Amino acid sequence: MKKYNLLVGQSGGPTAAINATLAGIIKESLKSEEIDNVYGLIHGIEGIFNNNIINLNKIDIKLLKQTPSAYLGSCRNKLPAIEENEEEYKKIFEFFKKKNIKYFLYIGGNDSMDTVFKLSQYAKRNQIDVRIAGVPKTIDNDLCMTDHTPGFGSAAKYIAATVHDIVKDNQVYDLKSVTIVEIMGRHAGWLTAASALARTDKEKAPHFIYLPEVSFSKEKFIADINNLFDKGIKNIVVAVSEGIKDENGNFISENKNAVTDAFGHTALSGAGKFLEMLVKDKIGCKVRSVELNVCQRCAGYMLSKTDISESERIGASAVKALIKGLSGKMMVFERISDNPYRIKINSVDISKIANYEKKVDVCDIINGNDISQRLVNHLKPLIMGEIKLIYSDGIPITLYRNE
Amino acid sequence: MKKYNLLVGQSGGPTAAINATLAGIIKESLKSEEIDNVYGLIHGIEGIFNNNIINLNKIDIKLLKQTPSAYLGSCRNKLPAIEENEEEYKKIFEFFKKKNIKYFLYIGGNDSMDTVFKLSQYAKRNQIDVRIAGVPKTIDNDLCMTDHTPGFGSAAKYIAATVHDIVKDNQVYDLKSVTIVEIMGRHAGWLTAASALARTDKEKAPHFIYLPEVSFSKEKFIADINNLFDKGIKNIVVAVSEGIKDENGNFISENKNAVTDAFGHTALSGAGKFLEMLVKDKIGCKVRSVELNVCQRCAGYMLSKTDISESERIGASAVKALIKGLSGKMMVFERISDNPYRIKINSVDISKIANYEKKVDVCDIINGNDISQRLVNHLKPLIMGEIKLIYSDGIPITLYRNE
Repeated sequence: MKKYNLLVGQSGGPTAAINATLAGIIKESLKSEEIDNVYGLIHGIEGIFNNNIINLNKIDIKLLKQTPSAYLGSCRNKLPAIEENEEEYKKIFEFFKKKNIKYFLYIGGNDSMDTVFKLSQYAKRNQIDVRIAGVPKTIDNDLCMTDHTPGFGSAAKYIAATVHDIVKDNQVYDLKSVTIVEIMGRHAGWLTAASALARTDKEKAPHFIYLPEVSFSKEKFIADINNLFDKGIKNIVVAVSEGIKDENGNFISENKNAVTDAFGHTALSGAGKFLEMLVKDKIGCKVRSVELNVCQRCAGYMLSKTDISESERIGASAVKALIKGLSGKMMVFERISDNPYRIKINSVDISKIANYEKKVDVCDIINGNDISQRLVNHLKPLIMGEIKLIYSDGIPITLYRNE
Repeated sequence: MKKYNLLVGQSGGPTAAINATLAGIIKESLKSEEIDNVYGLIHGIEGIFNNNIINLNKIDIKLLKQTPSAYLGSCRNKLPAIEENEEEYKKIFEFFKKKNIKYFLYIGGNDSMDTVFKLSQYAKRNQIDVRIAGVPKTIDNDLCMTDHTPGFGSAAKYIAATVHDIVKDNQVYDLKSVTIVEIMGRHAGWLTAASALARTDKEKAPHFIYLPEVSFSKEKFIADINNLFDKGIKNIVVAVSEGIKDENGNFISENKNAVTDAFGHTALSGAGKFLEMLVKDKIGCKVRSVELNVCQRCAGYMLSKTDISESERIGASAVKALIKGLSGKMMVFERISDNPYRIKINSVDISKIANYEKKVDVCDIINGNDISQRLVNHLKPLIMGEIKLIYSDGIPITLYRNE
């Protein structure tokens, strides 16, 4: 039987699980009799224009799975409309032909699915048998048509464990204090909602959770905190989305008068920093803010086993589906049951995905400052299980492209 | 044989290993025929004045060891000089008598050792047979007379692993970028030095490490980065101590014109944020700063087995020493050899410890922007080994005082 090659690229912001999907793709490809080589595109679609691909057949799968961030590198490239610049598409498909590529998988978020959509449209219109599909990834969990996204579970687990520990740190002194934890998410509050998983039977902190899906009132925020102080709670922890917006829809972090830097420029302070200053001004107690920052997407030491397994599985499923003839689709998770937690992997038309954002249902936002038990139940299975990491010299081993 | 009780308190900033020391103290006390009960002081020495102690005999030792932050709570209380307020000392020793306390251990940093010093002086002058000793803890590693401090190794491991992952995150895009990681340490650069442990044979990032022990020049910093860009390195990662100071000894983060907040106050920007703005202004490439913040001292999921074992051992050794008659001392680590790494536990006169700060030897600072291999060899053993954590609902279990 004639054999073909599979090409895979990673695109958009990195996650701790995007390489597990790559691992699933490589493993399944090498099992198949249809596929000869798995090539990796360096820096996403740019790898085609730069003729920069590597052979992945002999990679160490086990180490790849525990390596955070995009092993192949990434890009933010958005393809033009086909009508606008057909030459670019011709180049891409000539590259596919030259490299004997019949299968193309792109692991990414919203923008990456736009690339998958356009490429598969071009192939269809020109009756080229290159099968093209997308595999989702994003810590933000904001892709629609899928129960959740690969990469979200590990970010959520990192957030839950870290907020749990920050709560303990905040309880040490016998004085009134507020700690504000700023969590990623410009428009969707999924990651911030995951901070609720820091709670236990014995400790209800974080006490308040503010998501960007509903408008944020500074007055209510201060009242929320004062109410809790009045109830005798001394050490308050608040989880807040970087993207919270005021009543007029302006980002709290984009308050134009917020911060003037040392060079006279107006700089953006984060939402957390802004609220820290607000508490200092309006309440005057001990207060600090902690921005979880890039660790949310790159920490390789708090991986969710559920997330890593599913990320690998969805990669493998994509390969199987391509071989069966699928194209122009994105692979998705469908939840079969919550308890016991079970999912299956399907595919949906890529046109239904590209450029839409899935947000937290406002019905799951309680009193503007918390989330529902239903949402907690939905999120909890995604952070379950741990990966036994391989260490060297005291830190987890990660793979480099030059080895 | 008549039995006595042991009282233990925790003081100063929390660490991820301070409860391992507490665990060692409890375990060793319960083994001893001299000790009846182990009592824990709630919120350090304040627990005496508030008559707030708990019995620790039945605590879950295994879970206590994996619980970060001070289980007993902490305080920043500094005792007055004995001559200034003898009444306070009388109260403390009456409390000891009432509770049948013969052994008192205080786990803490510099300020806590001052408390130990004063209490043991008072006992000596008044010939009271209450044996009092200090057990060190601080992530800052800035106590003298000890090879290193309990708690430092876990913080160093967290920093090494986190900087390693941030380096990977920073390499994803094919464009010039600088990531500045701000690490704790106002006066001593030990934690920032530990970022060197993020490096591997294949990856030399973080490319530059700036410690507070030598003066920081903004011009040289920009030149350092431009030189590396000129050499073809695209993704630069810099580790910087929060306490770096300019040529005049002023904190970079205390630049009075640095930041004006939304309420018109002058706010302090961190050193990392300041350098981010500096790179934006002078170089103009993609740049961001990441403040590792409290996670350095409270993350319970990147514990160094070496640190946790040693922290437990030094607690146990303190109990044994008290029973043998020791008082007025702090327990210390003495390094016997680097390779294989071996330490032994000694005690030193508390008067030699209190209120001194141990800094990184300037001979170990190379070119103002890196550390020596000698220092790397000194630090590496301290982050070795991992603790198998017990999880529940996706996050490590930690103990609460109310259970």
